[in-house]
Amino acid sequence: MKIETIDFFYLSIPQVRNIGDGSQDCLLVRIRAGQQVGWGECEASPLVSIANLVCPMSHSACRSPLDAVLGHRIDSPADIHAINHRVREIGLDIAQTGHTLSGIDIALWDLLGRHQGRPAHELIGYSKAYPKRPYASQLFGDKPQETLEKGKAMRQAGFTAVKFGWGPFGRDLKADRDHLAAAREGVGPDVELLIDAGTVWVDDVSEAARRIEQLEAIRAGWLEEPFVGTAVHAYGELAARNSSIPLAGGEGASHPDLARQLIDFGGIKVVQIDTGRIGGITPAKTIADYARAKSIRYVNHTFTTHLALAASIVPYAGMSEFDLCEYPVEASELATHLTIERLSRDNNGRVHLPDAPGLGLTPNLATLKKFLKNVEIRVDGKTIYSTPPI
Amino acid sequence: MKIETIDFFYLSIPQVRNIGDGSQDCLLVRIRAGQQVGWGECEASPLVSIANLVCPMSHSACRSPLDAVLGHRIDSPADIHAINHRVREIGLDIAQTGHTLSGIDIALWDLLGRHQGRPAHELIGYSKAYPKRPYASQLFGDKPQETLEKGKAMRQAGFTAVKFGWGPFGRDLKADRDHLAAAREGVGPDVELLIDAGTVWVDDVSEAARRIEQLEAIRAGWLEEPFVGTAVHAYGELAARNSSIPLAGGEGASHPDLARQLIDFGGIKVVQIDTGRIGGITPAKTIADYARAKSIRYVNHTFTTHLALAASIVPYAGMSEFDLCEYPVEASELATHLTIERLSRDNNGRVHLPDAPGLGLTPNLATLKKFLKNVEIRVDGKTIYSTPPI
Repeated sequence: MKIETIDFFYLSIPQVRNIGDGSQDCLLVRIRAGQQVGWGECEASPLVSIANLVCPMSHSACRSPLDAVLGHRIDSPADIHAINHRVREIGLDIAQTGHTLSGIDIALWDLLGRHQGRPAHELIGYSKAYPKRPYASQLFGDKPQETLEKGKAMRQAGFTAVKFGWGPFGRDLKADRDHLAAAREGVGPDVELLIDAGTVWVDDVSEAARRIEQLEAIRAGWLEEPFVGTAVHAYGELAARNSSIPLAGGEGASHPDLARQLIDFGGIKVVQIDTGRIGGITPAKTIADYARAKSIRYVNHTFTTHLALAASIVPYAGMSEFDLCEYPVEASELATHLTIERLSRDNNGRVHLPDAPGLGLTPNLATLKKFLKNVEIRVDGKTIYSTPPI
Repeated sequence: MKIETIDFFYLSIPQVRNIGDGSQDCLLVRIRAGQQVGWGECEASPLVSIANLVCPMSHSACRSPLDAVLGHRIDSPADIHAINHRVREIGLDIAQTGHTLSGIDIALWDLLGRHQGRPAHELIGYSKAYPKRPYASQLFGDKPQETLEKGKAMRQAGFTAVKFGWGPFGRDLKADRDHLAAAREGVGPDVELLIDAGTVWVDDVSEAARRIEQLEAIRAGWLEEPFVGTAVHAYGELAARNSSIPLAGGEGASHPDLARQLIDFGGIKVVQIDTGRIGGITPAKTIADYARAKSIRYVNHTFTTHLALAASIVPYAGMSEFDLCEYPVEASELATHLTIERLSRDNNGRVHLPDAPGLGLTPNLATLKKFLKNVEIRVDGKTIYSTPPI
C-alpha cells in the first residue's frame, strides 16, 4: 500500500482548565492508504504539532514528517520502522518532532494491522497479549478530605492499585503529609498506593528527599517524577540517597534515548512510557525490551483516551512480567467518548487489548464533530493547513 | 518595566534548498517594554515556534510561553532567570518549548541591556568580554576538489581554524578519506582543522570508530556530532574506544540538562551550545560554568546571523580560557544582512562583541521587509497569530 493522506484533527473541550488534566484536548491522527484507514493520537499541544506537520523546510535536518511518510509504502513492520527512522532524521532540528511522529507511528501500526487483519501487538512481535492489572490514575484533591474520598471511591470500584498526582502536592511538607495520609486512609491498607509528584521539585534533590519518610509511612509503591524528565543527575542522586521508595519516570521522554538515560544513569526502577510522546509504538517497544534486559519495570503512561490507552499497552502487551497498567479514571467527556469501543475491566478487574485488527478502536464521529476545532494556517496567502473533513 | 509585546517574525529566502545550511530562514523575536525594544532569534522551525507562541492551553503544564512573559516585570537579571524557569514549567509538556524560549530569553537580555545602557555580557556577570578566535564554519563540498578549494579560500582569508561538516561526509569510507585529505590539503599544515559529522551515524559507534584513523591522519582537532545529541551512550562508548580525537557535541540540546549529560556520561571534551536552541543565554551560561568546572572546552554553536552569533558568544564572553568561536562564512543573503552591524574580524583576526548596550546589533528593516513571510493562524474563526507590522 502507498500512504496517501495524513490528517490531523484538533479536538478540545470548550473550557480548558489550568490543572494537570491532560485529557482536555486531543490531537487525533488519521492515515489513509488504499482502502485502509489507521488512527493514532499525539499527546502533544495540538496546534504546535499541526504546525510541525505542515511547516516549510528550513534546511535538510529541519523538515516536516510529511516528506518521510506521504507517498511511501507500508507493507510490513519494517516499513514502519524505516519511516520512524526517517522522520527523526529529517526532523532532527525540530524539537517537536517526537511528539508529532507519535500519532503518525501509532496510526501506521493500526493501519497495517487492519490491512493484514492482525492486532498491532502481533505485528510488533508478540504471540499473545496478556491482560494488565489497571491502576486508577487520578489527581490529588484540592484538600486532603477530597483526596480521601477519591481514594475510597477507587477502592470501592475494585481497583487494587491507585495513583494520586499533581494538584497541590509537593509545595508544603505539612500539607503533603496530610494528603498522603488521606490517600492511604481512602484506599485502605491493602491497595497498592502510588504517588506522582508531577515534576514539582524540578531538579531539587533535597526537597524530594524530605518526602521519603512520608512516603515510607504510607508504604508508597513508587515516587513518580520527583523531577523533570531531563534531570537525570537529580534522579541519580535521589536514587543513591534512598533505597526504600522506587523511583518512576520517563513519561516526558520524546525520544527513546531520554528514557534510556533515566534507566542507565537516573536509577529509576519503573520506566513509564507515553506512546503519544516518545515517537509512537516503535520506540516504546525498544524501551520495553531495554527495561526487560535491565530488569526494571515497564509501565505505560497515559491519562487520556482509550485509543491512547490501547496504543500505550501494545509495546509491552506480550510481557507477562510487566502486569500493571495506568488506567485513566477521570478523563474528560471528550476523552471518554472519543472511541466507540473501550477497554473495560473484566470480572477479575483486568484490562484486555481488543481482540481485533490494528488497535481495535474506532473514533466516534459524533464526538469528533462535537469537539472539533477549526484551524487554518496560511503562509504568504497560501493555506497550508485547514481542518480536514471528518 | 513591564513586558508589553512579543512579536515573532518568520523570514526566509525564496527557495530553501535541501542542504545542511541553517541560514536559509530565521525566526526573529522582538520584545517591547516601556520605551525599550529587545531583539532575539530562535534557531527553530519558524512556523512551529510561532504556533508554540500562540497555542491555546492544553493543561497546566502544556501552555504557551506568553503566559510567563507578557505583563511580567523586567528590571533585573533575576527577572529574566525567573521568566526562563517559569516558561519551562508551564511549557513542560510541549517539546518545542526550549526552541521557542531561546529567542525570547535572548531578546530579554538585549532589552534589559539597552534599558540599563550595559552590554549583555556584563548583565550576566562578566566584567569584560575577551575577543574570540573565529573558526571558519562551512559545509563540505560535494566533491573533494570543492572541499579543497573551500579550505584554501579560508586559509587565504586568514582563518587559523576551519571546520567542514555535513554534505556528503560519513556515508562512504573511501570518499570520506578523500574529503578529509582534501580538507587538510586546502587549509595547509598549520591551520586547526575541525570535522563535523552532522549526526550522520545516528548512534552507530562502529561506523564512527572506523573514521578515527582517517581523522588522526589529518590531525583533526575534534570530531563533532558523530551521533544525534540524545545518543549519550554512543558518545560514551566512542570516547572510551578512542583517546586521540576529542569528541564535540551539544548543539542539539534544547535543555541544559541534555548538554550536561553529554559532559557527564558522553565523554565529550568540547561542548557546543546553540543559544538559539537551548533556551537562550541564561541556560547557555549555566553550561559554560559547568564546562569550566568540569575542565572541558566550551564553544558556541551558530551557523546563521550575527545576531545569533553575538548571542552565542555572550554566555562565555568573559572566559578567556575558551578562546575559540564558531564563525559562519557562507551564510545566506538573509542571514548576512539581517543586522546593520556585524562582528567583523579585527587586524589580529579576532572577533569582538559590540561595545554597546544589550547585544549591540540592530535588525536591518530593509532585510526584514525583503524576506518576511506573512503567516496567519486561525482557530475557530479567530485569528490568534498574524505577522506583526515591522
